Amino acid sequence: MSDFVVRSPRWEERVRMSFASQPLMAHLGCLLGEVKPGEVEIILPQSPGVMQQHGYFHGGVISSIGDVSAGWSALSLMEEGFGVLTVEFKINFLNPGVGEKLVARGRVLKSGRTLLTVQSDIVGVQDGIERPVATGLFTMIAKEGLEL
Amino acid sequence: MSDFVVRSPRWEERVRMSFASQPLMAHLGCLLGEVKPGEVEIILPQSPGVMQQHGYFHGGVISSIGDVSAGWSALSLMEEGFGVLTVEFKINFLNPGVGEKLVARGRVLKSGRTLLTVQSDIVGVQDGIERPVATGLFTMIAKEGLEL
Amino acid sequence: MSDFVVRSPRWEERVRMSFASQPLMAHLGCLLGEVKPGEVEIILPQSPGVMQQHGYFHGGVISSIGDVSAGWSALSLMEEGFGVLTVEFKINFLNPGVGEKLVARGRVLKSGRTLLTVQSDIVGVQDGIERPVATGLFTMIAKEGLEL
Amino acid sequence: MSDFVVRSPRWEERVRMSFASQPLMAHLGCLLGEVKPGEVEIILPQSPGVMQQHGYFHGGVISSIGDVSAGWSALSLMEEGFGVLTVEFKINFLNPGVGEKLVARGRVLKSGRTLLTVQSDIVGVQDGIERPVATGLFTMIAKEGLEL
Repeated sequence: MSDFVVRSPRWEERVRMSFASQPLMAHLGCLLGEVKPGEVEIILPQSPGVMQQHGYFHGGVISSIGDVSAGWSALSLMEEGFGVLTVEFKINFLNPGVGEKLVARGRVLKSGRTLLTVQSDIVGVQDGIERPVATGLFTMIAKEGLEL
Repeated sequence: MSDFVVRSPRWEERVRMSFASQPLMAHLGCLLGEVKPGEVEIILPQSPGVMQQHGYFHGGVISSIGDVSAGWSALSLMEEGFGVLTVEFKINFLNPGVGEKLVARGRVLKSGRTLLTVQSDIVGVQDGIERPVATGLFTMIAKEGLEL
Repeated sequence: MSDFVVRSPRWEERVRMSFASQPLMAHLGCLLGEVKPGEVEIILPQSPGVMQQHGYFHGGVISSIGDVSAGWSALSLMEEGFGVLTVEFKINFLNPGVGEKLVARGRVLKSGRTLLTVQSDIVGVQDGIERPVATGLFTMIAKEGLEL
Repeated sequence: MSDFVVRSPRWEERVRMSFASQPLMAHLGCLLGEVKPGEVEIILPQSPGVMQQHGYFHGGVISSIGDVSAGWSALSLMEEGFGVLTVEFKINFLNPGVGEKLVARGRVLKSGRTLLTVQSDIVGVQDGIERPVATGLFTMIAKEGLEL
């Protein structure tokens, strides 16, 4: 468990419900990995639709799973009645997106009243060996009344 | 036409071939819009798979079309035998992704020997009216021998 | 004049007061250029303390004037009683920082209730000729009760 | 010591020489902290010229020390005859810049042939207690023949 304060007893259920309701996740074939307060993993197995023309995971897809892992990491710290939106993000690609699956690991760096700063590290996994693929910094805003 | 110097007589064909060979484009339902030296448009009509749970275009999808419009803007200025890869990018979301379609307009700001800096503006279009959705700055690297 | 709505009759005075009260501006030798609603220019003449070891304007200094031009562009749109803070920014360096002076031109892209997105373009000027040096995207947050 | 391969026996001397030759460092009052392969610390004691108008360290100064800590982290891994330039960077501000001094800790995430990705964490220190102030991601390019 991380050091973050949980503000809703339903924090985990809220993340799982939000994941389940997001059409892009099914469209890309994403799975939810570990879910902790302030830290959420998204897993993306390789499939033809998420690759670019050189046989690697597509950069846009890598960014997308970074973004959602960051978003749900932030959501896990929200009180009831609040959702989150991405304000902006930045991602650096470190190595080609290679592997049987990608794992994006979001982790809240700073949880303010209005804004949250989240880092997400994306790794490629092959035969149990991880290799860094990308890292990003995300700014999220808490919005009252936003559906999950 | 922009002010950029064209380094390959096949510059437009190369962009069109690269677009056609990228599985994610078909998977998302993207179309190629205007193609000029240093400037490439990507069009994304609304469809269920590219939306998030609140009925807007998904942030990851918005980033993805920004990224590819930037990448092909850079590719249009490459000489024969060179492709481009995204080094990193940053995107700010300005308004919710609303509209019958999104248009991402890449435009090279600086074309160096190794690196290119590209801006991409993404707008939502409804009944012919455009509204800003996001803007991003992308760093691309020229790679010899990279297939389109 | 830009299209932005002015929310304080003292908008220009507020920008000029805030500039005058910031020690770093005097320390670097910055001047205030054009001030319009949503658009503020900062001018930095060459001097030994703001250069790096290769004889160019220092990247940190280039970022600093981008940041303050963006901040005061945002401040010019605030109502009375509100100040702004930088949440995050991103800057791409396009050409070496060369010239008798630098000019940073901030321009608000989106003015929301809580957050503002601002672009700043930094150019080097020599004998009246401008050359792009850097461009950045800045996220600013409006804070009630923040002194200018 | 970090895991990075040292490519010049003079790696540490090169970092120290480069630091000493950079006028902005003296102008701001920066000190060099720990220097390891791929990891360099910059220390900035509080002084009037580096503060903004609310009594905190100025954001531009925070970015500047992040940038140079990242740059020298990259330089420490260069072979003889190569220097580094900042291509672009992104910084998120986490807490106000408070403390008797700031420490910026650069750390290379990926050292490629041409490009390096570096993270820098900036903390404020008061009475031996550290508090996060900012974190940034930096892209550096290796340049042959660049003076340190």
